[in-house]
Amino acid sequence: MAYLNDNYLKLTAGYLFPEIGRRVKVFCEANPEAAQRLIRCGIGDVTEPLPAAAVAAMHKAVDEMAVRETFKGYGPEQGYEWLRHAIAENDFRARGCDVSDDEVFVSDGSKCDCGNILDILGEKNKIAISDPVYPVYVDTNVMAGHTGEANETGAYAKLVYLPCRPSNGFIPEPPRKHVDVIYLCSPNNPTGAAATRAQLEAWVKYALEHKSVILFDAAYEAYITEPGVPHSIYEIPGARECAIEFRSFSKNGGFTGVRCAFTVVPKALRLTTRSGELHPVHPLWLRRMTTKFNGVSYIVQRGAEALYSAEGRAQVDALIRLYLGNAEVLRKGAKKAGLKVFGGVNAPYIWARTPKDVTSWQAFDKILNEANVVITPGSGFGSKGEGYFRISAFNSRANAEEVARRLQELKW
Amino acid sequence: MAYLNDNYLKLTAGYLFPEIGRRVKVFCEANPEAAQRLIRCGIGDVTEPLPAAAVAAMHKAVDEMAVRETFKGYGPEQGYEWLRHAIAENDFRARGCDVSDDEVFVSDGSKCDCGNILDILGEKNKIAISDPVYPVYVDTNVMAGHTGEANETGAYAKLVYLPCRPSNGFIPEPPRKHVDVIYLCSPNNPTGAAATRAQLEAWVKYALEHKSVILFDAAYEAYITEPGVPHSIYEIPGARECAIEFRSFSKNGGFTGVRCAFTVVPKALRLTTRSGELHPVHPLWLRRMTTKFNGVSYIVQRGAEALYSAEGRAQVDALIRLYLGNAEVLRKGAKKAGLKVFGGVNAPYIWARTPKDVTSWQAFDKILNEANVVITPGSGFGSKGEGYFRISAFNSRANAEEVARRLQELKW
Repeated sequence: MAYLNDNYLKLTAGYLFPEIGRRVKVFCEANPEAAQRLIRCGIGDVTEPLPAAAVAAMHKAVDEMAVRETFKGYGPEQGYEWLRHAIAENDFRARGCDVSDDEVFVSDGSKCDCGNILDILGEKNKIAISDPVYPVYVDTNVMAGHTGEANETGAYAKLVYLPCRPSNGFIPEPPRKHVDVIYLCSPNNPTGAAATRAQLEAWVKYALEHKSVILFDAAYEAYITEPGVPHSIYEIPGARECAIEFRSFSKNGGFTGVRCAFTVVPKALRLTTRSGELHPVHPLWLRRMTTKFNGVSYIVQRGAEALYSAEGRAQVDALIRLYLGNAEVLRKGAKKAGLKVFGGVNAPYIWARTPKDVTSWQAFDKILNEANVVITPGSGFGSKGEGYFRISAFNSRANAEEVARRLQELKW
Repeated sequence: MAYLNDNYLKLTAGYLFPEIGRRVKVFCEANPEAAQRLIRCGIGDVTEPLPAAAVAAMHKAVDEMAVRETFKGYGPEQGYEWLRHAIAENDFRARGCDVSDDEVFVSDGSKCDCGNILDILGEKNKIAISDPVYPVYVDTNVMAGHTGEANETGAYAKLVYLPCRPSNGFIPEPPRKHVDVIYLCSPNNPTGAAATRAQLEAWVKYALEHKSVILFDAAYEAYITEPGVPHSIYEIPGARECAIEFRSFSKNGGFTGVRCAFTVVPKALRLTTRSGELHPVHPLWLRRMTTKFNGVSYIVQRGAEALYSAEGRAQVDALIRLYLGNAEVLRKGAKKAGLKVFGGVNAPYIWARTPKDVTSWQAFDKILNEANVVITPGSGFGSKGEGYFRISAFNSRANAEEVARRLQELKW
């Protein structure tokens, strides 16, 4: 009898975004007129076209694939050297972070990397996850058997949840107890909070003392506007010994449909074997990539490389400015609507408190039905997200302004 | 103390193809003149440019991404409906196989899928793997902790190896003992053997009796020339209850550098939970895809779709004919050189016996040094591959002819 992985059966309901999609589809089919004026601020998906530099580079790459002399078959599984170099140079060394080209692993998405990283970690680790947070961290740990069952709030046994509240600026403090693996996401999805240097220093100190590993998701790094907020965990001394960083081209270059991301695994990072010895992690991730992955499309890697050209950088900056401008419009609109709001300054997300005792999904349904706007219910990001909802700033300016207006018309 | 996954430390040497790459690099640096005439028949990587239909479709898709109205962000994680439909219709239903669109999951590679499928299988399964075979099956099971240590021949404890020999046409028979998960690859990499209908019927019968699951890798399906050889496991009655099939666009459309593949998980396939109940596998794979993957690049999916157009099919057929013609040239050349050869009729691979008592890696080094041709040592595919080597037919006709000549000049 072949066995399946029972841990999957512990997962509660569907993954958040497919569930939102399902509800929106039902609503639109039942209300074809309202569907016409629907504005989607739910899933954090970009709306603007690709930067022209990436478009040109991908056309050129497609042409190369059409000619025998320039055709490209299998590339290096961990990414082409020219892209790894552009990343290490521009995203890290230019900021004073010590990251070498071969510590950068190019992949088809941060979601994949955040899930797949568990392949190289052991089974006995105590896992700490912010609450609320991007659901992939929790769900992939459930699938890997690192948790018990979920309770009625959706929290899984064995996981250590790190509560994010207004009082800690939605960035968790290191716990008093020992944990081995720590997920941090800054700028944060969903709360829009960005960790300060002092906060990250406290985490690096904790991780070094506890021989823990920090999984640092910086997919929204490009949205940081406040000076002093670190763009990479490697700005913090000691982080090379205790942190893996995930980055993506989804939210800066608008690559959500193009698919390209990368992960930095420093050679100085060593974790513990069952027999208690320290062993470098870099060769394990390299082995995983070469054995279970075959590299990102050549065409896509050329598109990503173009984002680092002078032209590409200017075009990416313009996209970020547009989305951050939307965030400001939405933040101000939500405030005027009487909502208590957070985020939207260093991130493309507004995190709003639901009025009265309205639950997150009640707010979702009300905003969908009455304002014909799709938001994301905060409880979908963890039990501490209950009573909040997330508004995505990925939209046109006109839509952001319209959503700000409609929020002010809602009677709660 | 954060633990790493010790199972990785059981892996012997590097993954086969990086190791070949390393040896070739060393040789070329030491012998710059010989490097000039080097011909690569090692890694099974295509050499001819992409079909024009795919090129045109990808240009069009890149253009769509450059305009707001046609821009595509996140797509469905499991693939766009139009591609899943084209696959199910053309590759399966047109052959009388009962496969619905939503049983097709589009991915970025069969290597990934073959490795990732273990995510949804349990830990207690007895795993059976052909020997020799594509190394990813073995290595990913080692990583997942399904094996013990390797012995001196490279065979891992706890795995059940199914020997492939000339006497069984290099297609293993079902074992007498019970196994839960069975990897089959037909047409076979590396031996070039294709399973007959009777052989697959025997496997399906075994799997149904034992409630096992067959992981059927048909990445080389397009190379089948002999009538009566099944192109899909689903041509065998009962296979929907016991088999998952992996396919790829790498070797038909030449997508090794473009990255697109797919996996079929039939809804009728049910496996056992720890408590002994049968549970469908389809929702688990769907959940894995939606949680740990974010879909294949829109541009790439449009390229894959174009391979099913009338123009695309004709172009793919021409590519296959070229490579199969190469296989014939190589097969005949190797025979004339006095080698005992197999394969090359329903597959782009020639499987040759090394003369005398020469080992696979000795043959690799000799052919590299004296003929300046890169082949793949058979022992890299498993202990029963020792004493063989694989010649890939992915090349230009001129190169295939030159390799056939050089093989005949070698003195063993």
